[in-house]
Amino acid sequence: MNTTWKHPSMARTLLAVLLAGLALGECVPEASAQESRRRRTTQEAKPIELSPTQVADLTKIANERQLNVDDLIAAAKTFLPSGKHDEYITFASGGHAGQIFVIGVPSMRLLRTIAVFTPEPWQGYGYGGEHDHVRQMLMVNGKEVSWGDTHHPALSETNAEYDGQFLFIGDKANARLAVIDLRDFETKQIVKNPLTVSDHGCAFVTPNTEYIIEGGQYATVLGYGYAPPEEYEKSYRGMMTLWKFDRAKGRVDVDASFAIEFPPYFQDLSDAGKFSSDGLIFQNSFNAEMATGGVEKGNPPFEAGASKRDMDYMHIVDWKKAEAAFKAGKAEKINGFPVLSIKTCVAEGILHLTPEPKSPHGVDITPDGKYVVVSGKLDPHVTVFSTAKIRAAIANKTYSGSDPFGIPVLDFDAVKEVQLELGLGPLHTQFDDKGYAYTSLFLDSAVARWTLGGETTAKPAEGPWKLVQKTPVQYNIGHLVAAEGDTASPDGKYLISMSKWSVDRFFPTGPLLPQNFQLLDIASPGTTMPVIYDMPIGVGEPHYAVMIKADKLKPWLVYPEIGWNPHTQAVDLNAPRKGHEGVIREGSKVLINMTAIRSHFNPEHVYLEEGDEVTWRITAVETTQDATHGFCIGGYNINLSLEPGEFAEFKFTADKPGTYPFYCTEFCSALHLEMMGYIHIKPRAKTAQATDTDK
Amino acid sequence: MNTTWKHPSMARTLLAVLLAGLALGECVPEASAQESRRRRTTQEAKPIELSPTQVADLTKIANERQLNVDDLIAAAKTFLPSGKHDEYITFASGGHAGQIFVIGVPSMRLLRTIAVFTPEPWQGYGYGGEHDHVRQMLMVNGKEVSWGDTHHPALSETNAEYDGQFLFIGDKANARLAVIDLRDFETKQIVKNPLTVSDHGCAFVTPNTEYIIEGGQYATVLGYGYAPPEEYEKSYRGMMTLWKFDRAKGRVDVDASFAIEFPPYFQDLSDAGKFSSDGLIFQNSFNAEMATGGVEKGNPPFEAGASKRDMDYMHIVDWKKAEAAFKAGKAEKINGFPVLSIKTCVAEGILHLTPEPKSPHGVDITPDGKYVVVSGKLDPHVTVFSTAKIRAAIANKTYSGSDPFGIPVLDFDAVKEVQLELGLGPLHTQFDDKGYAYTSLFLDSAVARWTLGGETTAKPAEGPWKLVQKTPVQYNIGHLVAAEGDTASPDGKYLISMSKWSVDRFFPTGPLLPQNFQLLDIASPGTTMPVIYDMPIGVGEPHYAVMIKADKLKPWLVYPEIGWNPHTQAVDLNAPRKGHEGVIREGSKVLINMTAIRSHFNPEHVYLEEGDEVTWRITAVETTQDATHGFCIGGYNINLSLEPGEFAEFKFTADKPGTYPFYCTEFCSALHLEMMGYIHIKPRAKTAQATDTDK
Repeated sequence: MNTTWKHPSMARTLLAVLLAGLALGECVPEASAQESRRRRTTQEAKPIELSPTQVADLTKIANERQLNVDDLIAAAKTFLPSGKHDEYITFASGGHAGQIFVIGVPSMRLLRTIAVFTPEPWQGYGYGGEHDHVRQMLMVNGKEVSWGDTHHPALSETNAEYDGQFLFIGDKANARLAVIDLRDFETKQIVKNPLTVSDHGCAFVTPNTEYIIEGGQYATVLGYGYAPPEEYEKSYRGMMTLWKFDRAKGRVDVDASFAIEFPPYFQDLSDAGKFSSDGLIFQNSFNAEMATGGVEKGNPPFEAGASKRDMDYMHIVDWKKAEAAFKAGKAEKINGFPVLSIKTCVAEGILHLTPEPKSPHGVDITPDGKYVVVSGKLDPHVTVFSTAKIRAAIANKTYSGSDPFGIPVLDFDAVKEVQLELGLGPLHTQFDDKGYAYTSLFLDSAVARWTLGGETTAKPAEGPWKLVQKTPVQYNIGHLVAAEGDTASPDGKYLISMSKWSVDRFFPTGPLLPQNFQLLDIASPGTTMPVIYDMPIGVGEPHYAVMIKADKLKPWLVYPEIGWNPHTQAVDLNAPRKGHEGVIREGSKVLINMTAIRSHFNPEHVYLEEGDEVTWRITAVETTQDATHGFCIGGYNINLSLEPGEFAEFKFTADKPGTYPFYCTEFCSALHLEMMGYIHIKPRAKTAQATDTDK
Repeated sequence: MNTTWKHPSMARTLLAVLLAGLALGECVPEASAQESRRRRTTQEAKPIELSPTQVADLTKIANERQLNVDDLIAAAKTFLPSGKHDEYITFASGGHAGQIFVIGVPSMRLLRTIAVFTPEPWQGYGYGGEHDHVRQMLMVNGKEVSWGDTHHPALSETNAEYDGQFLFIGDKANARLAVIDLRDFETKQIVKNPLTVSDHGCAFVTPNTEYIIEGGQYATVLGYGYAPPEEYEKSYRGMMTLWKFDRAKGRVDVDASFAIEFPPYFQDLSDAGKFSSDGLIFQNSFNAEMATGGVEKGNPPFEAGASKRDMDYMHIVDWKKAEAAFKAGKAEKINGFPVLSIKTCVAEGILHLTPEPKSPHGVDITPDGKYVVVSGKLDPHVTVFSTAKIRAAIANKTYSGSDPFGIPVLDFDAVKEVQLELGLGPLHTQFDDKGYAYTSLFLDSAVARWTLGGETTAKPAEGPWKLVQKTPVQYNIGHLVAAEGDTASPDGKYLISMSKWSVDRFFPTGPLLPQNFQLLDIASPGTTMPVIYDMPIGVGEPHYAVMIKADKLKPWLVYPEIGWNPHTQAVDLNAPRKGHEGVIREGSKVLINMTAIRSHFNPEHVYLEEGDEVTWRITAVETTQDATHGFCIGGYNINLSLEPGEFAEFKFTADKPGTYPFYCTEFCSALHLEMMGYIHIKPRAKTAQATDTDK
């Protein structure tokens, strides 16, 4: 062969360096990273002044791109140069994508997807062969339900403040709750509610994450039961489930969890009291009408039937009393799960109702725990309840009556603090550090800023309980989230409008359009609160989000030790060690012990017989940040993500003979394409009968 | 009940408007959208000048956020205000996420995910019950393989220019090709290669999209066969498949497609010639060594064995001759698929090789079709081949010998134009409109700009075939993509570095980190080509991307007619029409005809018996852009996305009795939560025997 390289020796040296480096587990990228970090750091210190030429340059670019001055200001407020980190991290639900999205604020960049209810091959989540851990977690009533409708993420709290340890989220479609560990941003547990097919108001936490609250929504016969709709009032029920969280284990303790029976109103969102209101949970509802629809029979459809009355019911649960009743054995079992009946709850003083206007959506506790803000949805007001007045009305039995199920209804005027008219379609409320509240107005397509009053410590200049201003958003905001906006000490600064319709905001991607996360600068009450960034969300229908200070999170950069099992969050004794790779066969059972390191797997050839039952164990023998490998077997629906130090095990039956390449699916090095091997599955010798059949 | 509304009549009026509006299929959001469009438009016209106060404001923000002047410039170059659309659309592969990501440039915002090889519930892709169309498409050799390793997207071309009609992408793990229709951005077809388990170099197109090229990679026994690795040279083979595209049908015509047998080198990427080189396909390879690894036996691992030689082989295919041979019946069938053997290809002058250094990765045709740029990966050069010299060498049989399979090898010096030393780890090359080429340097973590020479029309100031400059990227760039950078008329302007490692670039999201798409401003050769944006890609490992002028795309805003079936791209006669909703039962077979409109389904109650076989048809009776509904059944793993006008059908067996709410999963209106209904699955009366068993 004719070679005319200019420096063939250089290439040979390079290759030698690459191969030697790989054996050491060290890498060129890391060296390069350090160098670049240095480059960046040297730029950071000194403040700038813009010269006339620089101003002219900026102006020229702005005019070429048709940006106005507000746009330039917004760009400066949101742009993050390479290597600078965002100040806040937002965890947004992925709606019916079933996942969680991790978004940096203020840059509004999607940093990562966390797979929760939907298998995700990049993360190797649910692609681990025949008995995959994730697929097992996803089983509902004997069926794999491999998606979710994630609605409400909640961060674990200590003293009503985010502590950055855990994240929870509910699946509305299938009434499931997931637990994510924020050390590795991975889903560790999914629990299925045994009472109901679907829910809505999940997850919310009590101030020290004693419980994770799951509210229901569409009433059914508890325990997956059946009854015709004619028996709606008699047999259908709502519920609230209190999942006990074991912080040390990082898991829900199902055996210490219980539920509360509710009337068949459509229960919606919750919030837990804090400080003076600690111990109470507030949950709203709609369809106090108990409408059962039936547009096909000429009845009013659900949307109309459930909107007839002017008032629905807020449910007030004393969860400490409920816990005591549960521990005292007063719960009955439905589908094996303990439920405190309405009767017991009334008898024990666990459950009260109060009227609330009208088909409300959000119920939000003020940072001091003193007020509950209910957004009317079909009423132009937010209604503010005083938690002190609620406590007093409960103590004094200031009832206006009881509901059809015998639950005492607190007198509305006795517990109401104030009502504020904000505009059309108020849905949800968040708070800042200066005594302001922010409410989403779905039909107005606006965010309203208004002042808190009463016993609130901060006293905004505009006076108490006043609508201050509105910012239009595009379009039809659902939830909104402010920086630490539902904790005891919100930060203000940033607020995201989770706008449901984007229509013309982005280049159209066919009939299915993204939604629109719009970042508002709320740092300066007294001035405007402009939209400073539009972020398309083209990966699901995000519903609610939480926003935490980035420095509260302490993620692992690599797994703590080689051979780490993320399911147990501990070193796994089964993890293959370097130098101990190999294949062990016992009859038709085959165990493979493999290591992965830049840039090869060991072993590279695996010999199997058709029908073998294979257990495959791999350890990623890497300690460098970002030195992640993938491992896939084509045609066998198997793909793993092996982060530095990670151990994984999967099982499959070698039922399809042939030669199957396996390879690394995460671009890990210059020799990444060469990081591969073969599985040789030898066909079983055909019996005479089988051969005949084949003919 | 005690009501103290200030304006109860206002709420009642609002509700009446909402309910009436819904019946008309019209919406408040749309009105609001139009108003906001007007708001935005009035701002756009006049150029700005920055006042000293505005400069001071900008400077203050910059200093608070530690931005330097370059950062402000970069922000101004990339920021897009609300409602402004991106100039370019990038379609990026999703790597082992299995999807495609649609990204706006220069804002680098993720506009949408297109589900391709991985079921995606937001899009209702693969969540349509028991015989789901998507799940059927995903079957490989009798197994559902519900993920892919998407590598190379390709846009359909007319005269070597993107025409904006179709998008293709390959699945490396499972050797599949997908076809996406860019009218609705949805996957229409997936074809499985019958010859090989996995591939790599897919998809690339010929200049008029006559064929979609699928290259192989890891050699196996063609047709899913088996042979031990000792028989590697004898029995293992590579291949290139030419999938015939039927543009009128928008589908691959499998019956008019065929493959070419290749030696068991690891074939890699391809590019099709254009203009003077039209009719040729160039495909590189590595592992001309035919190394078979075996580190577990003390052999050199694949990474070392496949890197021993200084030269590998570029494959040159005359696809017009190949097509003629195929049409003349000269192909043999392997696993039912026509394959032109090496012998036939040599005899017909279809296949030639030429040496190329060293384990190369990218092979890229210059915009004029006159040169082929091969990036050496383990060689610091790019090697530029002249297509005219290749044609001459083929015509004159200027061979330096033949490979072990009898394929003639063109003399390297006879076909080589020039070699340029660029740096360590050159991988891929793109082009601009001014005579420059851009090559990614993996090990250098840099983008190199260099000048084309020879017969290239544009004559850059620096002279021909010169390295001009490099921009560092963070870190370890794989592919890169420039605006229309692999067409006959690249645009220059923007280039994305698809950096594989992000390490410290973003706030760490646990051990699994995003990759980094870095936008470079390449508009002004002669100055720098700075990185102006870092976009984390936290939803997969994107591999390659294509970037098209946004105005070449003509997406539908809603489906053309009510009752549209996206699988057939036509109105479906089975689509239920408004006024014709209902349930039809024949024995245990039940047909449901449903419509969906803001904010109800019709019917709202569906009565089933346990064991019923259900066919469910829904038409979204909406004509407003973005008025998308979802439809899910909890516990049954069913979720649809019903875009305006869309018809969908799914089937399931009602094998789990109980009461199942269904509801709209896409926040569609103020009464979205009320858009629901119930399926009542009555338990089958238990037989005496069954009852006994239950005891």
